[in-house]
Order: sequence, then C-alpha cells, then structure tokens
Amino acid sequence: MQENGPLVNQLNAVMSQSLNAFQQYRQLPAKQRATFLLAIAKNIESLGDTLLNITAAETNLPLARLQGERARTIGQLNMYAEMLLKGNWQNCIINTAIPEKNPPRPDIRSMNVPIGPVVVFGSSNFPYAYSTAGGDTASALATGCSVVVKAHPAHPQTSRLVAKAIADAISETGMPPNVFQHVEESSFESGKLLVQHPSTAAVGFTGSFSGGKSLWNYAAARSNPIPVFAEMGSINPVLIFPDALATQYDSLASQYAASISLGVGQFCTNPGLIIVHAGKGLSAFLEALTAQLEKVNAAAMLHQGIITAYTQKVATALQQPGVKPLIHHSPSDTDHKALPILASVSASQFLQNTQLKEEVFGPYSLVVVADDANQMLEVLQSVKGQLTTSLMGSDTDFSQYASFIQEATQVAGRVICNGVPTGVEVCDAMVHGGPFPATTDSRFTAVGVEAVKRWLRPVAFQNFPDALLPDELKRDNPLGVSRKEI
Amino acid sequence: MQENGPLVNQLNAVMSQSLNAFQQYRQLPAKQRATFLLAIAKNIESLGDTLLNITAAETNLPLARLQGERARTIGQLNMYAEMLLKGNWQNCIINTAIPEKNPPRPDIRSMNVPIGPVVVFGSSNFPYAYSTAGGDTASALATGCSVVVKAHPAHPQTSRLVAKAIADAISETGMPPNVFQHVEESSFESGKLLVQHPSTAAVGFTGSFSGGKSLWNYAAARSNPIPVFAEMGSINPVLIFPDALATQYDSLASQYAASISLGVGQFCTNPGLIIVHAGKGLSAFLEALTAQLEKVNAAAMLHQGIITAYTQKVATALQQPGVKPLIHHSPSDTDHKALPILASVSASQFLQNTQLKEEVFGPYSLVVVADDANQMLEVLQSVKGQLTTSLMGSDTDFSQYASFIQEATQVAGRVICNGVPTGVEVCDAMVHGGPFPATTDSRFTAVGVEAVKRWLRPVAFQNFPDALLPDELKRDNPLGVSRKEI
Repeated sequence: MQENGPLVNQLNAVMSQSLNAFQQYRQLPAKQRATFLLAIAKNIESLGDTLLNITAAETNLPLARLQGERARTIGQLNMYAEMLLKGNWQNCIINTAIPEKNPPRPDIRSMNVPIGPVVVFGSSNFPYAYSTAGGDTASALATGCSVVVKAHPAHPQTSRLVAKAIADAISETGMPPNVFQHVEESSFESGKLLVQHPSTAAVGFTGSFSGGKSLWNYAAARSNPIPVFAEMGSINPVLIFPDALATQYDSLASQYAASISLGVGQFCTNPGLIIVHAGKGLSAFLEALTAQLEKVNAAAMLHQGIITAYTQKVATALQQPGVKPLIHHSPSDTDHKALPILASVSASQFLQNTQLKEEVFGPYSLVVVADDANQMLEVLQSVKGQLTTSLMGSDTDFSQYASFIQEATQVAGRVICNGVPTGVEVCDAMVHGGPFPATTDSRFTAVGVEAVKRWLRPVAFQNFPDALLPDELKRDNPLGVSRKEI
Repeated sequence: MQENGPLVNQLNAVMSQSLNAFQQYRQLPAKQRATFLLAIAKNIESLGDTLLNITAAETNLPLARLQGERARTIGQLNMYAEMLLKGNWQNCIINTAIPEKNPPRPDIRSMNVPIGPVVVFGSSNFPYAYSTAGGDTASALATGCSVVVKAHPAHPQTSRLVAKAIADAISETGMPPNVFQHVEESSFESGKLLVQHPSTAAVGFTGSFSGGKSLWNYAAARSNPIPVFAEMGSINPVLIFPDALATQYDSLASQYAASISLGVGQFCTNPGLIIVHAGKGLSAFLEALTAQLEKVNAAAMLHQGIITAYTQKVATALQQPGVKPLIHHSPSDTDHKALPILASVSASQFLQNTQLKEEVFGPYSLVVVADDANQMLEVLQSVKGQLTTSLMGSDTDFSQYASFIQEATQVAGRVICNGVPTGVEVCDAMVHGGPFPATTDSRFTAVGVEAVKRWLRPVAFQNFPDALLPDELKRDNPLGVSRKEI
C-alpha cells in the first residue's frame, strides 16, 4: 500500500473535490446546467479538425467516421440540454392531501434528485460518444451529478482536448470548477481506487466483460455497495428465417457483410452470430457473404492490443469442434491490419460449446446452422444476455414465427426487424442495454434520454408548506415542468 | 451438500415451474392480470375475522392494527390493478422514422417488460402489507413477473391462508397455476438457494440489515448477478429546530411519544434519533417526552426473538460512553413485554460512536444534543442512508435553516416537514426507500405505484411493421395506453 500512497492521496483529493462540487452543482437550476452542456458541445465543435486529426492518429479511425461520432456526441449533449429545459426527466409526482381520509393523507410530492459523484470509464472504440464527454458524462452532468472521468489510455490526447473543452465550458458558464475532473492516471489500480472511494456514488463503464465485471465486483465489495452500470458487449444474434433466406439471400449477404465489417467490426452491436436453418438459399447466402467479406480491404484496428486479441480469439473460435472457416485467410495481414473472418458450425455443436458464445471483438461472425426453426430458437435461448437480436424474415416467415419476437425480447434490450444491429440511434425510445452480461443491470439503457435514470434517485417531500418546496414541486409550478398530479 | 439434496431438488422444481409460468403469464394482457389482482384482494377480504384472529395470535398485533394493515394490503392490490388498466407504467415511447435524416432514423418504439421470476422474502412486522400478498408480491405480479414467496416463519398460518387466497384467485381467473408459489421451508439455506437459482431474476426483501445484506451478497456472487431490492430499516433522524423546541415542546413531546411507541416501535420508520440543540425548551421537552413514554403500557412484541434483541440492543446502546438513560426501567417486564426507552447523548459523543448509529428495533429513541445548528447538521450528515428524515420547525426556524431541507434529501428517501415518520401512505408520490443501508438501491421505492420499476426492464422494437408490434406500441394504440410519442 505504501507504494500507492501518492496515488491514493491524489485520488482522495479528486473525489473530495468532486463531492464538494456536487453539493453546489446539484442545487443549480436545471437551466444553468443546460447552458453548461450546450457550452461543452460548442467547445468540442470549435476544436474542429485539430481534434479529428489527433483522434484519427490515436485510434486509426477514419475521419468520416470520427466526424459522424463527433456529431453524435454534440447531439447527445444538446439532447440532454433540451431534456433539462422540458423537465419531465425529474418524474415530478404530486399527491395532494386528503384530510377526510382515514387515516388522513398528507400532501406528498416526489421528484428525482442526482445520486452523487459519478466515475466514468470511457471506451476505446468510441473516443467521443462513449468517452470523456460521451453519453455517461453528459447524462450524469445533466442530472446534477459531478463527474470524474478516467481517461482511456488508448486515446490520451483526444481525452485531454475534450476535457479541456469541458473545463472551458465550466469557466464560461460559471459552474463549480471541479464538477468535471479528468484523471489521466492509467493504472488498473487507479480505477479500482476510484470505484472504492467512499465519495463515489455510481459508476459508468463501457468496454470489455473483464473490465466491467471487475469494477462491478469492487463496487459490490464496498461496505456501502454502489450501482455500476457497465455495458460489456454482446454477440448480437441475427436470426434469418427460411423464406427470407430462400428469396433474399443476396441482399441479406450484402447487408450483413457491410454490418460485420463496419468500422473493422469494432462495435458492441457487431453481428457476431447468424442463426439459420439448413434449406433453400443457405449455400447461396454463405457463398455471397463469404465473397463479399473476402473483398473487404485489410484495415487497422484501434490499437495493437485489439488486433492481437482479435487474432487470438478468432484462432480459439476456429479450433472449436465442428467449426469450419468459410474464409481461409488469416485474420490479420503482415501490416497487423485486420481482415474479416466468417465461419460456420452446426447448432448441435454450438449448443454444447460455451466458448462459441463469447464475443470476438472485430470483423468476425459465426453462422450457426440449425436443423429446423425449433432448433434456431434453442440456439437463441442458449446465448447469454444481449444488447440486440435481429429477426430477418418475410411476411410468410413472420406469419409462422411471430412468437420468436417475444422470445427475442427475453434475450436482448433491442429487437430489430429486418435490419442490422450496428447503428445505435440516439433518441428517446432507444434501449442500449440488456440482460447480463450485455450490461450489469437490464433495467437501464446507456443511450438516449432514459439513460439519465441510472444517476437519479427519487425523494418525497411530505407535508411541506409551498414556500419550502423545490420549485419543481411548488403549487403554481413556476418552472412549468411536466408533472403527474393526482 | 448431500444432506441438502432433497431441498435442492424441491427448490429446483419450484423455480423451474416459476419460470414456465412466467413465460405464459408475461404474455397475458394487462387487463387479465388486473382481474387476478382484484380477485386476490377479494379473497383476502373474504377470509374475514378468521385471518385476523390467526394473525393476532401469531404476531401479538392488535386487531385494530391488523384491520388497518389488511385494508392497506387490499388497497395496494387494487392500486396496481388500476395501474394496469391505465397503462402508463409501461413507459411506452415512440420515435417514428425520419428517412431524410442522415443517417436515416428507423422507427423505434420501447416499452417495459417484466424482468422474470421474482423471489419475495416477507417481513415479520407487516404480516399482510409486506408479506405473502404484500407490496413486493403485488407489484411483481402486476408487471407480469411470476413470484415465489418464502413464508416468514414468524406467521406461518397467516402466510398459508393468504397463499391460499392467491391460489384460489389463480384458479378463478385462469392464471398459470405456478405464477405464485409459496415455500414454507423456513431454513436459511432455502433462502440462499432461491437467490442463487439460475431462474431467479430479482429478489424483494423487507427485514433486517443482516438478512437483506446476506441475500444481496448471494445475488452479487452469482455468475450472472441479479438485482436485490432489500429494505433494511433505518433510524429515521428527526431534527427539532430551536424555535419549535422553545415554543412547541409540549406538542412535540406528545407527537413523538406516540410515534416512538406506535405498534411497540416495530416499524422501519420508527423515529430512533432525535437531534436538538441545547437551549430553551430542551429540558421541558425531555421531561414531557419521558413522562409520556413512561405512561405507555408494556406490550408484547412480535415474537420472543424480537423482544430479546430489543433488550440486548437497548443495553448495548445504554452502555456507550456518555449515553444517559432518561427512562430508568428495564426495556422488558417480567412477562417479556416491551417498554419504551429514551436516552440522551451529546453530539460530540454521538459523532465518535458508530454503535449509536445502528437501529434498535423497538420503542426506543436517542436524543442527541448538539451545541448549535451547525453541529445538528453534522450529526445528520454522520448517519448512514435513511428511509426518512423529519424536520420540525416554526416559520422562524425555516427562515434560518431552509438549507437543511436540501441536506436532508441527501440522507433519506422521504423528508417530512412537521410530521412524524411513522405512517407510510400508499400513493404515487410515496418514496419508501433511501441510500444504503436503508435499502440496497436508492433509485427505487418499495411502496407505491413506482415500486413496479424494480421488476421492469425496457425493450426497444426497431423497424417493426405495425402488425408485429405489441399492442401497446401499435400505430393506432388499440389498448389506449398512455404513450410518449416524439
């Protein structure tokens, strides 16, 4: 422990400052917080090409992709600002007194309040949208929580630039200086200490299962456990029903070749499992999908660790009993760039094998061939919790297999009909979550307006005179927020 | 493990049946579930005096109290039935497609679905309202979850009768037979096995810290952790501000003598900590409170274990440095009946002592005497998470100490102005929850309509043709549920 003395002291200071900032920040009017979020968005935009070029160099992500992700990040900040101005995120509920009831009902009014300082661990694959000023930070700051971001070591300069944009927004809008803090200490130990710190009230994480589950374990072992929302990836099963396979194999192959290789497969919604049953169209589908994936150019992944892991995990998958590679080249070329890999296995072999149910992060997909539709369902039910499940079928298919929709809701947080899982729309209805291990708590989403619920707790005010109530709950509703009055 | 073989087999069968029932039950229309809940309520009412007399014999609770609690239990079932008919609990959100957006926004619609089989551990102190057909069971059944109740060993016959009322309602309304199951196996091991079972999706618990935290630990140690909502009690700090103390000491003493001794102090909202500062009215308040509590008759507690624990915990509290008993009789008489105990301690002694911050379940309260208002706040901030905090003050007090309201929201789930914490109204705005260890997750309430959120997870449907959507999300809203359409 002595070695860690300076680190412990440093992080104690960070969390103590975060708690102090929280005590001021949570009491600011929501409108001021909205102004702050808008300023962060504006400052990130102002970083212009400087930011994009630095991130491209750090992550190997192409500029067009980074432009899109930057737009999304700015869009998220603006969305939460808009939410703050509308006010319905606070879930204001008012039960007025009923003196004649036995026993008499007092006046009770409840609303959401922020949970406390939130520690955010950004991801490597979304250097903007799930990182320093990404969805976790934006949603937590929106609710009135202070935020401590542990910078992702894969893109330190990007993180520093974005942190500076937030720091500038703090000055410009007069926020408490430590409402956002950026910790560049990259050790595993520092993450553990942040999660264990008594002032930490909640944790947001996006990344691998091992990383997310470790943080979850540290939080669970605290004397006062705190919520950790970790989004830990998924293999995103895709079911292709027989009529669609027989009649649309070509367009299905194109759609999925694009989705599997999109962004070098570095999305948590990458379709890693395609479930079909033997029959008309199958061999044509496999041929077309293989041919299209073979045409994809080798591309650099985020960093050396990712390509190494991809190569190893593909090798492990291909060694499993009954797994046949459909693409015979190596998953990485001599320049350490990644190439898509496709393989197939029978459903009966898949069902016996837990290894094949693990995520292979990268442009890889496994086609599981079932004997019939019942076995397709069995395959779906055998996988762990998922972010998404896609159902590809014609009208004829759905007249027969409509019950699969309900089954898919039991596996994943988002069910897609005739579409690919990649591409997560940021909107009110989005659910980017799902049963464990897709996330650590299926009751929440990491994307969209509803993501703020992770950082909010309800408080009831009983028998308060109007003047002492928070403005949100006052009789005349001076802030004009949306409320449920009963 | 071999010894437990029969128990393991029995509980495996229970959970397997629960999962099967869940798969059918979750797909029933909400209106059918409402009919079921209403039938349970009717059947409990039909048990009439038979039920009341048995419970009175098992719990020592007076008939008038049991009548009130039965009315509340029936009211809760009816409230969730009404909620089901209104439909806004499902949080239906609709984002229609925007094809011209870049990239195009698909149609995305989300709604809440039930999480899965819920295991409920009822409490001893609420044999109806937090037990077999209590709030956890009613809210879980409302959402479409199946329920397994582990009967509380302190009132086995009550639990069996209520379980029979539910079983009859299942037959009468044609529900899947195992949607509710009653496990009478009272061992600690059986509770552990139920929480560890792979088919268990969530747990509800009301009771002691040691019981709730053990279950939470078992759930956290699973390979797929599940949410446990445990409500584990509280000492419910009450702050009496100086002007109120100086001018209203007599009525404050009456209010709090009644609240401390209500139901022999066997409420999780019992006021176990009264924070004042030395000054005018204090000695008069202490004299009046002592005198009124001394007049309270000895009364039987729920069972022998509770009175033993009460006696021991009072003795431990009174042994702490600086604690002065204000009532000098023993906490229990020769008939093993309980008597109220009041003690006082200086704030500086209290702040140094963690033992004094622990709950003493029963008619006990500790008055903490601070030097000034700042120290009163320090005392409030030193306690762990609470279900409630009460602020007793005049207009003069609140003109000076309004900031205490915000501080109180950081400690508790419900803040009461000039009222006692006992008496938990069942309504939409109620928050019966709070930061750890009052509960294991401050983001939820155990009482009121909002309590269903513990058992619900959101699912998004992307790009679905209208005919394949759940009725709740169809274009024409055939069920007429409340929705957010954007």
